[in-house]
Amino acid sequence: MPKSVLRKTLQGFHPYVPGEQPPDGEGWVKLNTNESPLPPSPRVIQAIKDAAGEALRLYPSPTAAPAREAIAHKFGLDPAQVTLGNGGDELIELCFRAFADSGDHVAFPTPTYPLLEPLCRLHEVAPSAHPTEMFDELPVSLGPDPAPLKFIVNPNSPTGALFDAAAVEAAVSASSGVVAVDEAYVDFAPRSALGLLAGHPNVVLLRTFSKSYGLAGMRIGFALGSREVIEALDAVKDSYNLDRLAIVAAVAAIEDEEHHQKLVGEVVGNREQLAAGLAGLGFEVVPSSTNFVFARPPHPALKIVEALRERRILVRHYDREPIAGWIRITVGTREQQDKLLTALKEIL
Amino acid sequence: MPKSVLRKTLQGFHPYVPGEQPPDGEGWVKLNTNESPLPPSPRVIQAIKDAAGEALRLYPSPTAAPAREAIAHKFGLDPAQVTLGNGGDELIELCFRAFADSGDHVAFPTPTYPLLEPLCRLHEVAPSAHPTEMFDELPVSLGPDPAPLKFIVNPNSPTGALFDAAAVEAAVSASSGVVAVDEAYVDFAPRSALGLLAGHPNVVLLRTFSKSYGLAGMRIGFALGSREVIEALDAVKDSYNLDRLAIVAAVAAIEDEEHHQKLVGEVVGNREQLAAGLAGLGFEVVPSSTNFVFARPPHPALKIVEALRERRILVRHYDREPIAGWIRITVGTREQQDKLLTALKEIL
Repeated sequence: MPKSVLRKTLQGFHPYVPGEQPPDGEGWVKLNTNESPLPPSPRVIQAIKDAAGEALRLYPSPTAAPAREAIAHKFGLDPAQVTLGNGGDELIELCFRAFADSGDHVAFPTPTYPLLEPLCRLHEVAPSAHPTEMFDELPVSLGPDPAPLKFIVNPNSPTGALFDAAAVEAAVSASSGVVAVDEAYVDFAPRSALGLLAGHPNVVLLRTFSKSYGLAGMRIGFALGSREVIEALDAVKDSYNLDRLAIVAAVAAIEDEEHHQKLVGEVVGNREQLAAGLAGLGFEVVPSSTNFVFARPPHPALKIVEALRERRILVRHYDREPIAGWIRITVGTREQQDKLLTALKEIL
Repeated sequence: MPKSVLRKTLQGFHPYVPGEQPPDGEGWVKLNTNESPLPPSPRVIQAIKDAAGEALRLYPSPTAAPAREAIAHKFGLDPAQVTLGNGGDELIELCFRAFADSGDHVAFPTPTYPLLEPLCRLHEVAPSAHPTEMFDELPVSLGPDPAPLKFIVNPNSPTGALFDAAAVEAAVSASSGVVAVDEAYVDFAPRSALGLLAGHPNVVLLRTFSKSYGLAGMRIGFALGSREVIEALDAVKDSYNLDRLAIVAAVAAIEDEEHHQKLVGEVVGNREQLAAGLAGLGFEVVPSSTNFVFARPPHPALKIVEALRERRILVRHYDREPIAGWIRITVGTREQQDKLLTALKEIL
């Protein structure tokens, strides 16, 4: 056995490292992984409890049928235009599986979600990176790129910036392959790419219940697209990728639109307070269309992140250019944000 | 856009088709997907209900840490020798991701679990099939095969037969790459390959909570192996592949060994009744080490399967040689089995 049993092309592979998850209930102010500061709908909790019974001995619906129908209904689509994933991450991986052969290119603007690069390695495709000069300007080079698969994370992470709708549509129109628009954060933004579905069968929108529905712990993502694109994703997914409780949770969450709106409204309100607080401390703040704020402190970012950690406050830092000077801070409760801002004042 | 948006190497791809899942509560006798006829432990149900709360807003442990520890404890292993998957199927897919480059071969005896062939297509590897002359004899050609990844489903599906322990060990010893022993059904068998872990760092055992723990609806599989092999699987998996409720369910299921043993005992007892009943009707029956019985009826199998379906009884049939004349029947409750045997008597 060689030292690493990983396959040859993965020697020296660096997996994506998710934000730290400290054990529950130890008093951390956790603003590092863009979870919702508010809990999910009580109707979701109740639906899970009701479904936790003897039927768990049976496999779930392989198509997560009730959830497809509920989501399709909400967006005015046909259920054949919807599929679900074990979190949005699985849907991203399924796009690689369905649309990118080994040796192909996969294109995306940078900086963006750091999961994409290791997925390129895993699928033996070459990343075709299109650097954004300004965080909120989609590179015009993305559209003409001949890659069979492109990702546009919009609003983008970790910047929080929203690309221009016309620029996204132009990139989609210029693309012969599939364009996956990762809209994990879109519920906190003023607009989505939903309107693109009508005229563009090569678009797939990736959404999640992890942020705006307060269900990161349940691992539920969904994709909206043309019948062809959804059929392709279904062909390559694992047979039973959502468990029974995730399916009932998705249905209940979609049906409680009032709770969803309340959660989004509160996060957006808190976001503005957080952004103002950071600006008041001398941070450069990117206007955010998400549930987090991306900001550059007046002193080196890493030291500030470490000083916060000593105070049991977690935020996210990416030790790579051009964003090594920046910090990504999840919108929290007012109380959490006050603690953060007070700590920052002390540290600075 | 081409007619199929699937990537070029997947044109004409036939995905694995899981057994039919009729909508719940419509009076089907469901003996087609090897679910447990008995429900999971009441402690599992309670643990899920207790965990269904506000903490669902937070991501789960990316390593499913509490479940790793509980499983490691049960098997006398280090937690670094355990990882978990979103069902056993995900673990099989992760083996391809971790150990097989595009262009490699992946070897396995045939007939076996029909998921392996489409996964070869998806990963652009060539299947290296080793036909078994007798269902229970592991082909001696498997060991010398230079494939970097091999699968031995043991007990095998859909045959239910158990390969000889010495033959499995010989194949493992002769292999320079990783050998995944899929032990989804092993709790119903007289022996496992657990003892191989000590001397063979290239072995990984794949297990599941779907069968002998009555938790198919929760999607929980686990892998046991050397630290190197487990580290490789962890490097390529999605960050949060198990949701919070699956993690607590796994812990509670492992801790209720009494329920597990009771379930296994009842299934094994019913299996012998089913096998005897089928033999009495003139079926050729493969001795089973699983929770299903593989049997060849005295008349064409497909017609019998269809006649059973008309009576709302589901069993599994694979329309391919050398098993097209056979039927795979999941062990059910005594009542379900009586209905099946009565129906078969009428049909024959």
